[in-house]
Order: sequence, then structure tokens, then C-alpha cells
Amino acid sequence: MPRLCKPSVRVPEYVITAEETLDFAERVHAGKPQLPLALRLIRNTGVQKRHIVQPIEQTLKHPGLTERNRIYEAESKKRTPEVVEEALSNAGVTARDIDAIIYVSCTGFLMPSLTAWLINQLGFRSDTRQIPIAQLGCAAGGAAINRAHDFCLAHPGSNVLIVSCELCSLCYQPDMDDIGSLLSDGLFGDAVAAAVVRGIGGTGIELEANSSYLIPHTEDWISYAVRDTGFHFQLDRRVPGTMEPLAPVLREFAAGHRWDASNLDFYIVHAGGPRILNDLAKFLDVDRKVFRHSWATLTEYGNIASAVVLDAALRLFEEDTPMPDATGLIAGFGPGITAEMALGRWSSDTPPATG
Amino acid sequence: MPRLCKPSVRVPEYVITAEETLDFAERVHAGKPQLPLALRLIRNTGVQKRHIVQPIEQTLKHPGLTERNRIYEAESKKRTPEVVEEALSNAGVTARDIDAIIYVSCTGFLMPSLTAWLINQLGFRSDTRQIPIAQLGCAAGGAAINRAHDFCLAHPGSNVLIVSCELCSLCYQPDMDDIGSLLSDGLFGDAVAAAVVRGIGGTGIELEANSSYLIPHTEDWISYAVRDTGFHFQLDRRVPGTMEPLAPVLREFAAGHRWDASNLDFYIVHAGGPRILNDLAKFLDVDRKVFRHSWATLTEYGNIASAVVLDAALRLFEEDTPMPDATGLIAGFGPGITAEMALGRWSSDTPPATG
Repeated sequence: MPRLCKPSVRVPEYVITAEETLDFAERVHAGKPQLPLALRLIRNTGVQKRHIVQPIEQTLKHPGLTERNRIYEAESKKRTPEVVEEALSNAGVTARDIDAIIYVSCTGFLMPSLTAWLINQLGFRSDTRQIPIAQLGCAAGGAAINRAHDFCLAHPGSNVLIVSCELCSLCYQPDMDDIGSLLSDGLFGDAVAAAVVRGIGGTGIELEANSSYLIPHTEDWISYAVRDTGFHFQLDRRVPGTMEPLAPVLREFAAGHRWDASNLDFYIVHAGGPRILNDLAKFLDVDRKVFRHSWATLTEYGNIASAVVLDAALRLFEEDTPMPDATGLIAGFGPGITAEMALGRWSSDTPPATG
Repeated sequence: MPRLCKPSVRVPEYVITAEETLDFAERVHAGKPQLPLALRLIRNTGVQKRHIVQPIEQTLKHPGLTERNRIYEAESKKRTPEVVEEALSNAGVTARDIDAIIYVSCTGFLMPSLTAWLINQLGFRSDTRQIPIAQLGCAAGGAAINRAHDFCLAHPGSNVLIVSCELCSLCYQPDMDDIGSLLSDGLFGDAVAAAVVRGIGGTGIELEANSSYLIPHTEDWISYAVRDTGFHFQLDRRVPGTMEPLAPVLREFAAGHRWDASNLDFYIVHAGGPRILNDLAKFLDVDRKVFRHSWATLTEYGNIASAVVLDAALRLFEEDTPMPDATGLIAGFGPGITAEMALGRWSSDTPPATG
């Protein structure tokens, strides 16, 4: 069965700390009624620092959508090759072994997708399938893993490369003071990530089942307003409460696979914010520490959209290698409100040495 | 094996004829050096009329990206339910039988994708997978069929709904006079389409194999420039010549399936323009009439992007029902330059009466 191999993740070189974010908010919203709310939202994110593709002075300016998308293209071309090469190497495959590329990114728009450029630049085969997904937002990390799983089932023995390029700082909208904008000013960070799902062999999370769930009638709870100035992130106040309806869905999904969602060995979930992680622990009846990898992503990088699950997975691989056959849950959450869920088991080509 | 069932297609109520397009071009480019080229490009499209979502006077104005995208959202919500309901009915399934929705559209951008709204409005299950693809342009019709095929292989017995919503007139850029803009002013039309790929049973094209191909180093031949004013279609002069390198790829794909691409019973190909269809006939060594359904789409509706293959397929179903086991090729072409190809065989649940 298909296996999610060790991801590769990079964050940009420009860093903004929580203190700096608060300072900038004090300055930007000085004397305006939204200031206390902005400061409270930023403090509550639990984010200690974020990495962004441009110095903060440039980030805070809006040069127009034309220029923003030009920067998106240049930065994505500059930053994705390295994670792609490393993800291939981590999986023990070459570009020629890849049959499909799933490219997820909701923070800029290119047509053709960056998949075409990557194929030409990095030596992928001309018959590599291109599956670009731009409209699933933070759920797209989970969706990419699930569609890679499906592709390997449809084409046995094939390998799929996932690339996530989230340059959230390029969606900063300085003139907005709605709650979605104020929150996103303090929450989102930039990152690029990649991982290979191998159809046969490899070491990582063997994908056993996947599922999707849309919370009915919440399609306007997380959305973009697409304007002359680009993508404007819009958030409903009810979003932080969505783990209460989603936890039973995760539980039922696991039960359908004869697993207990409250008693798995590892959890790789989207770190939408602290309330998401705390509530999910509460409603799944698990210790909040089971989400330690997602907490680390949130604290060190902020919400890096579809790249969160790949970064949390990387921390699992590096800091916390599970025992063979350890069971786990992967879940991305995003606009829709959509949950993209997977169940998998730690597997390795090399059986552990017996003593 | 999965079957592509009878599509449903609708074109909008506002009609612009070739003569009117020429008149408008004469007026818009009056006294400018590009006028003769504009008129020649429009005459060469072979398009007799197109259908658009707004009266021509409104279409020719640019109200800004904010308003354009608002119109895109309103028109897509107004027009897609009808084709979705009819496609379900054509396939003999209900919304509850659908396991995934593949939504393809490159002429507006919504997040969440319209999939979320469709699920909520039309009674699809909450666990319906959402696969929105915006960045494959005209190749997305073929890609949607191929990814639906894959999904049914990965999840045997499942059914996938394809929805294509191409409101090309909302990308009209009145201030542009490059060749891509001049051509698109006379070539592209609006349409919405849908079709179901059934995992088991149904009547239609049983999908046997699919493939994709990227012509190396052509990623800037068809592209969008994303600007403050929205999507600007950019076309390289070499695009009409791309059937020469692609015909051998189609031939090899068919040969790998032990079929002869020059000797199939039906052809459903993207009608990018008259040169595409004429060249493909020449390089595949087939009579140009084998593309009669694609020619009809081009002549009556213009290039309706990812909806072309669904409209051409509908004409096959309605006007020209193949004999059982008839063999055929489906191919979408678009930015990348990408070809998305499929091979299928006409199949029916009901065996033909024997005499």
C-alpha cells in the first residue's frame, strides 16, 4: 500500500517575532477602535515567530496584485526546487520515478501551474500527471496526501510528489480591519514543503484509508474575497468552534476502519490555531500533547496553511520515529469547512533488528 | 470499468455572431495598427457565434476584478445546478450516489470552490470528495475525465461528478492589443457542462487508459498574466503548431494500448481553434470529419475551454451513438502545453437486441 515518506520543509529567511507583530499592530491600528481586538487576537495565536519571504517593511506594503503575483511566481520558483529535491532523496526515488505531481497553494495563482515549470526544470518525465489544487486552502495538505493515496491505488506501483507552497505573507491586506484580516495578520506564516507518496516500499506512514467531510452550510465561514487587491482572507467567528462537530466525524472514520480515534499512536493535524488543537484534544478525549508536532509548527512558524501537516509529519519522522505498525491519524482542515482525513500505519522496508 | 456517461451542457442566452464580433473589433481598434490583424484573427477562428453570460455592452466594459469575480460567483451559482441535475439524471444516479466532485474552471476564482456550495445546495453527501482544478485551462476537461477515471479505480464502485464552468467572457480585457488578447476576443465563449463517470454500469464511454503529456519547455506559450485587472490570456504564436509534436504522443499512447490512433471509431478532442483540428487530422492521418463534433462546438459556441470535450462528447451521444465496443480517443489540450488523453470503448448496460 502507498506510503507517505519523510517530507522536506523550508521556511524563509526573514523572521518576525510575536513581539514585533504586536509592535507593528500597535503602530498600524494606533488610535483605532480595533486595536485592543487586534492585540488580543495576536496574543491568543500562541505563535512565537513566523518566517516570511520579504523583509517586514516590504511585506507591510501592498504593491498591487500584479506585483504581488510576480513576487509569488519568483519566490515559488526560487524556493520549491530545494524541498522537491530533498523530498525525492528522502523517499529514495528520482524525478524520473514520479508519475504525478500534486501542487497545492492558495496564496498566489499561476496558469499554467508551477507543475509545468518544475517538470521542465527538475527532470520529471513529460508524462507526469499534473494535479494543481488552489481552492482547498489549509485542507489541501490533507487533500494532497489523500489524492496521492488514490492515485497510487489507481496506478499500482506509481509514485506521487506532493508540493505545498504557501506564501501567506503575500496576501497581507493593510487596509482591512475585519476580524479575519486582524487574525491572519498575526497567525499565518510562509513555508514550502514537499513529500513523496511511494506506491511500493519506502519508510513512513502506510496510508490505509482516507475520507473527506464538509460541515453542512459553512461554506462562507472561511473564504477569500477576490478583489482588485488580490485575495482577502475572511473568517467567521464560529470557525474556532468547528472541532466539536468534526471530532465525531474523525471518530466515526476511525471506527469504520476498526481503529479508536482516541487511542492512536500518532496524530498529524492541521494547526489552524490554539483553540483548534485544544478543542480537538478535548472532543477526541486525548492528551493535548498528542498534537505536540502541530503545536511546534504553530509556535515556530505560525499557521503555514497546507504545509502544516507536512511540517508536523516531518517532526514526527525526525524527533519521534514511531514503532513499526504504530497507528496514526492525519487531518487537514480548511475552507468548506472541509476536513481531509487519513489513517495510516508506520511501516518500513527494513525490519527492525531483533535481539 | 468506469464509464463516462452522457454529459449535460448549457450555453448562456446572450449571443454574439461572427459579424457582430467583427463590427465590435472595427470599432474598438478603429484607426489602430492592430486592426487588420484583429480582423484576420477573428475571421480565421471559424467561430460563427458565441454565447455569453451578459449583454455585449456589459461584456465589453471592465468593471474591475472585484466586480468581475462577483459576477463569476453569481453566474456559476445560477447556471451549474441545471447541468449537474441533468448529468446525474443522464447517468441514472442521484446526488447521494456521488463520491467525488471534480470542478474545473479557469475563468474565475472562488475559495472555497463551488464544490462546497453545490454539495450544500444539491443534496450531495457530506463525505463527497472535492477536487477543484483551476490551473489546467482548456486541458482541464480531459484532466477531469482522467482524474475521475483514477478515482473510480482507487475506490471501486464509486461515482464521480465532473462540472466545468467556463465564463470566458469575464476575462475580456478591453485595453489589451497583444495577439493573445486579440485572438481570445474572437475565439472564446461561455458554457457550463457536467457529466458523471460511473464506477459500475451505465451507458457511455468505458474508460480503459489515460495519460498526460507536457511538451518540454513550452510553459510560457499559453499562460495567464494575473494582474490588478484579473486574468490576462497570453498566447505564443507557436501554439497553433503544437499538434505536430502531440500527434506522435497520441499515436504512441494508443499503440501502448494496442490501438491505432489513426483508425478509431470516434474522436473527442479539444477544439482550440481550426488550425489545431486541421493539423491533428493531418498528423494523425485521419479525415478531418472525424472531429466533426469538435468542429460543431467550435463553430456554434467558440472555444469553451474545458467544456469543449464534454460538449463534443454530448454531440457524439446525441447525434452519432457509436456501435457497441466502438473505440475512441478523448484529448484535452491546454497550458503547459499539456495534453490529457484517454482511450475508451462505447459500452452499454443493455445489450443490443439481436435479430
